[in-house]
Amino acid sequence: MMRAAVLRDGRMVYRDDVPEPTPGQGQVLVEVLACGICGSDLHFAAHGEQVLAATQAMAGTPAAETAVDLDADIFMGHEFSARVLAAGPDTDTFPAGTPVTSIPVLLAAKGIEPIVYSNTTVGGYAEKMLLSTPLLVPIPNGLDPRHAALTEPMAVGLHAVNKSGITPGDTALVLGCGPIGIAIVAALRTYGVEHIVAADYSHARRDLATAMGAHQSLDPADGSPFDTVTPKVVFEAIGVPGIIDDVLRRAPVGARLVVAGVCMQPDTVHPFFGVAKEINVQFVLAYEPAEFAASLQAIAEGRIDVAPLITGEVGLDAVGTAFDDLADPDRHCKILVTP
Amino acid sequence: MMRAAVLRDGRMVYRDDVPEPTPGQGQVLVEVLACGICGSDLHFAAHGEQVLAATQAMAGTPAAETAVDLDADIFMGHEFSARVLAAGPDTDTFPAGTPVTSIPVLLAAKGIEPIVYSNTTVGGYAEKMLLSTPLLVPIPNGLDPRHAALTEPMAVGLHAVNKSGITPGDTALVLGCGPIGIAIVAALRTYGVEHIVAADYSHARRDLATAMGAHQSLDPADGSPFDTVTPKVVFEAIGVPGIIDDVLRRAPVGARLVVAGVCMQPDTVHPFFGVAKEINVQFVLAYEPAEFAASLQAIAEGRIDVAPLITGEVGLDAVGTAFDDLADPDRHCKILVTP
Repeated sequence: MMRAAVLRDGRMVYRDDVPEPTPGQGQVLVEVLACGICGSDLHFAAHGEQVLAATQAMAGTPAAETAVDLDADIFMGHEFSARVLAAGPDTDTFPAGTPVTSIPVLLAAKGIEPIVYSNTTVGGYAEKMLLSTPLLVPIPNGLDPRHAALTEPMAVGLHAVNKSGITPGDTALVLGCGPIGIAIVAALRTYGVEHIVAADYSHARRDLATAMGAHQSLDPADGSPFDTVTPKVVFEAIGVPGIIDDVLRRAPVGARLVVAGVCMQPDTVHPFFGVAKEINVQFVLAYEPAEFAASLQAIAEGRIDVAPLITGEVGLDAVGTAFDDLADPDRHCKILVTP
Repeated sequence: MMRAAVLRDGRMVYRDDVPEPTPGQGQVLVEVLACGICGSDLHFAAHGEQVLAATQAMAGTPAAETAVDLDADIFMGHEFSARVLAAGPDTDTFPAGTPVTSIPVLLAAKGIEPIVYSNTTVGGYAEKMLLSTPLLVPIPNGLDPRHAALTEPMAVGLHAVNKSGITPGDTALVLGCGPIGIAIVAALRTYGVEHIVAADYSHARRDLATAMGAHQSLDPADGSPFDTVTPKVVFEAIGVPGIIDDVLRRAPVGARLVVAGVCMQPDTVHPFFGVAKEINVQFVLAYEPAEFAASLQAIAEGRIDVAPLITGEVGLDAVGTAFDDLADPDRHCKILVTP
């Protein structure tokens, strides 16, 4: 038996009776060192039914990840760093003790399982979990495993920037300075983008954006960011209804909008605004494995300093409280669970 | 005085008392040979207030074209071919009698005026109009001026395809086979795209799409086109609410959606569908001057045969009736006004 925090009836609950998973061939048992709490976890905890319904309403994606029973305990935690404990049968891997991370996917006999929301596959909010040897990335340079746990959200930002087609001379406007917006700011900085503007209602988050590389920060309470800057590329990292239409309405002709925020509700837009200005809208999700590795490398080499993002650290017994605390953007950005 | 058809109180009205325009420097007076009726003209006739309000609600575009008084007569007609009559003062241009066309823009002393909806600038629904010498394109190869009048809508299709980034091996799905959808099909064919699928509820329009180069045509009444094909690039040439969301919901992962239809109403979308599949949405409008010239060239060289699109021809006194007739997609595609 081991300790874990699980989602039960919309709340994160501490358990000390979770069976320790057994690695199969090609898998390793790892000890979780740190796991970041993601905004999508908060959203799933509050609106799990909506998330599953939206996924099921959509053609063209694998159905596997929708097979989650909301009435049973759910394992979560997909931003983790860990240490190798033991390999499965006939499995060559890194020596026990090696610090590693991985994209949150488990290769299992029955197929590919995302480590995101699952009744069966344990995630990073646990003492131990399984990972797949082909996906393991060793944590280099003696990097603090708490920093390595930020690899995943920073990879989301890198992917959004890679998909944006931005060049250093283009002005970038980042709407929303939660972890994803901040990750986008950091990635833009590593790209050498010379004019990065970040907008958020929270003073603390604007300061964080500046610390992470934004050249200018704006409070939307003082007026639309588009009154101040004329961006070539806009990154939407808020994910609430109305943002996309506001960008279509206010962005300059030929602008590109990268939608990294995940708005789960139906949203109203005026296609005419997009047509009249030939806006390009690129929806983005997650990252490629190579981007995940590049993100870890950028952190390990000090090109991205993730320390300012970490605003709290809790044990497995306080994950529920941490979920509540994250509602306050002035107090928190990223809370790590350190089992 | 000359003859023209003008928009008055939402109807096209015949007039024989329009003052003949006088060419200024850099302008020529031309005799209109043919002018196609565009769906956007029908829409403006029916919903002019909505069009002007939508344009005014939007930041980032020039305000000039919104200065139209709906209570006064409005000149329209932007898909024209013509013959040079006389040049303005100190203006070198083609000899009188030269058949020409032009992007629908007039360079005037007071600025750039789109030839689209105007209380003052005469369009192609008239005996004569003004064009600007720097924008004149001679009609080559003895091409029928009625076919040359299709240069403009075919350029819209070419531009949409140019912006799509499609390659010959990508499957293309064209939703809606009105003139713009058909122009997209024709442009896809000139690109060498090997699998062009066209969808429309009208049997006549599906047949037209096939005649213009579609390899496959589908009736949405028989089920979603996405049940039959898995397109890499989807062209939306319908422009009514609900289409964009349906594409986001049904398109395959990584698909690109080119929005060429002009939906003037607010529309509801589920951003989550776009995010989950990393859809790219490229809104498009009009064309570049070089695309206009390339479109004329493709028609003149026989690479695009526009003859099947022309389903009617009327004089200036029957433009109002032609507007009504165009409501029936089984009867009509493009009606030319030949003054």
